[in-house]
Amino acid sequence: MVANEGGKHWLKEICRFVINFKVMTWWCLTVVGKKTTCVGVWAEIGGGSGSSKGMLTKLLSGYLVITVVGRRNCGGSDVILLNLWVSVFGARVRIALAEKGINYEYREEDINNKSPLLLQMNPVHKTIPVLIHHAKPICESSIIVQYIDEAWHDKAPQLLPSDPYIRAQARFWADFIDKKCIHVCGRKIWLTEGKDQEVAKEEFMDVLKVLEGQLGEKPYLVGESFGFADIALIPFSVWFYTLNKIGNMNIEKECPKLAAWVNRCMERESVSKTLSDPHQFYDLVLEHNRKGY
Amino acid sequence: MVANEGGKHWLKEICRFVINFKVMTWWCLTVVGKKTTCVGVWAEIGGGSGSSKGMLTKLLSGYLVITVVGRRNCGGSDVILLNLWVSVFGARVRIALAEKGINYEYREEDINNKSPLLLQMNPVHKTIPVLIHHAKPICESSIIVQYIDEAWHDKAPQLLPSDPYIRAQARFWADFIDKKCIHVCGRKIWLTEGKDQEVAKEEFMDVLKVLEGQLGEKPYLVGESFGFADIALIPFSVWFYTLNKIGNMNIEKECPKLAAWVNRCMERESVSKTLSDPHQFYDLVLEHNRKGY
Repeated sequence: MVANEGGKHWLKEICRFVINFKVMTWWCLTVVGKKTTCVGVWAEIGGGSGSSKGMLTKLLSGYLVITVVGRRNCGGSDVILLNLWVSVFGARVRIALAEKGINYEYREEDINNKSPLLLQMNPVHKTIPVLIHHAKPICESSIIVQYIDEAWHDKAPQLLPSDPYIRAQARFWADFIDKKCIHVCGRKIWLTEGKDQEVAKEEFMDVLKVLEGQLGEKPYLVGESFGFADIALIPFSVWFYTLNKIGNMNIEKECPKLAAWVNRCMERESVSKTLSDPHQFYDLVLEHNRKGY
Repeated sequence: MVANEGGKHWLKEICRFVINFKVMTWWCLTVVGKKTTCVGVWAEIGGGSGSSKGMLTKLLSGYLVITVVGRRNCGGSDVILLNLWVSVFGARVRIALAEKGINYEYREEDINNKSPLLLQMNPVHKTIPVLIHHAKPICESSIIVQYIDEAWHDKAPQLLPSDPYIRAQARFWADFIDKKCIHVCGRKIWLTEGKDQEVAKEEFMDVLKVLEGQLGEKPYLVGESFGFADIALIPFSVWFYTLNKIGNMNIEKECPKLAAWVNRCMERESVSKTLSDPHQFYDLVLEHNRKGY
């Protein structure tokens, strides 16, 4: 399969498709024609039921037509993550996958031009992150992290505690972090000024203080080891630098236990290799404010 | 322990207290004096740590003083539910407990005068429902239902599917029901009029249509049996009558599969015995609108 300059993008898509379907029980790939200019390709991978999938790739390029039909073998271990690098929710999933040592294909989405695969895999919310495992989608970050823990139960470490009560506590704090919208709280600080900003800062600090209280003298939010609740919270820490700068705050001084906890988490490769440089987020906000979104 | 007419309320409290502490490893109950008129009692049960609890009941009645100090044995099976009868979230917990056949003490809270126990057991959100098991609180309805399934894992039926992927699906739909705030959506219908009400109706019906689509030809929302996602949704059905009346809607005609699913769920004793008469909710709304809250 050869494609000229204009067709490179589509060729890449086809290669990716072939990789995704490496565990197909049967497939056929037919190339008809002589010319190699790619003018269009459409691919659809997997589906809700997941056990089988009809595949059709239309590639019309001069006389070239490629048709692929596949039937998936669900015994494979293919894992794809649809994500945006900036997403704190996507970071949760990446940390969980790294903790378990699971290899996966990372696909960066374009928020302004969502891929057909994303729209197909998450038709209800149409949001990232989406984990595709055996061609079946799992959506919503907290649900994905729980799925990772359960589907790869035999791989250490266990992300959710084994005791039902401590597990409920871990879920409670992950839920608190989502409900109190630490993300939205933080955003308000750089989207407002004056009195409104003061209120937003107070609201944000109240949430952090509750978390500081929950940490207490413990090394992690729930239980003795890094887990579900920590994974839910740690991605937000990349925003602390920006919030300190823009809101004239000192989160580390106000919440020393939380600051120590961030450092403790950052010692883990799963976290330090996943989280982007906090300066990048600051630059994003400056760019955002400059453009006056 | 005898009390006169005026003291009956407090006597009931003490009895309840003694029942709750039937599994104490040690306790002392001292009655001093002769007269039996009860004038006051204060009781505090359990705590966040749950392993032990100092107990003090002050009962001053003439010459009567009762002091109780307890240390809890966590191997007991005492279960208390703090709830409001009108709560759709509390109904989820009651259905889950009924499905598992778990006996519990039901305590109706007063929303305008929350009990010290509620404030102590759920200091973060201060909301019902709260399940207290072995004197330890579990909060947030979806987390409680999962806890019930896990803590009483040996009791049938299993509320969450055993397959990790189908379990993720069940969590996804329970989360969708929470996120799309079917409750808030519905409330908007009776809080608005004219154009605003039309928009609210459309928004609400869109959510129901997604659920109708998810049901398809299946008997339940996820998998072949009644479970987590169904428990998350069914309590909202008591509001359909009110919404039909006030919003001039016909939910059953618009969503026949959902209507059939409601009937199917109502055949279960756990559901039919938990959910209140839909007319009661209609009366509540009429009362609410009359008072002009």
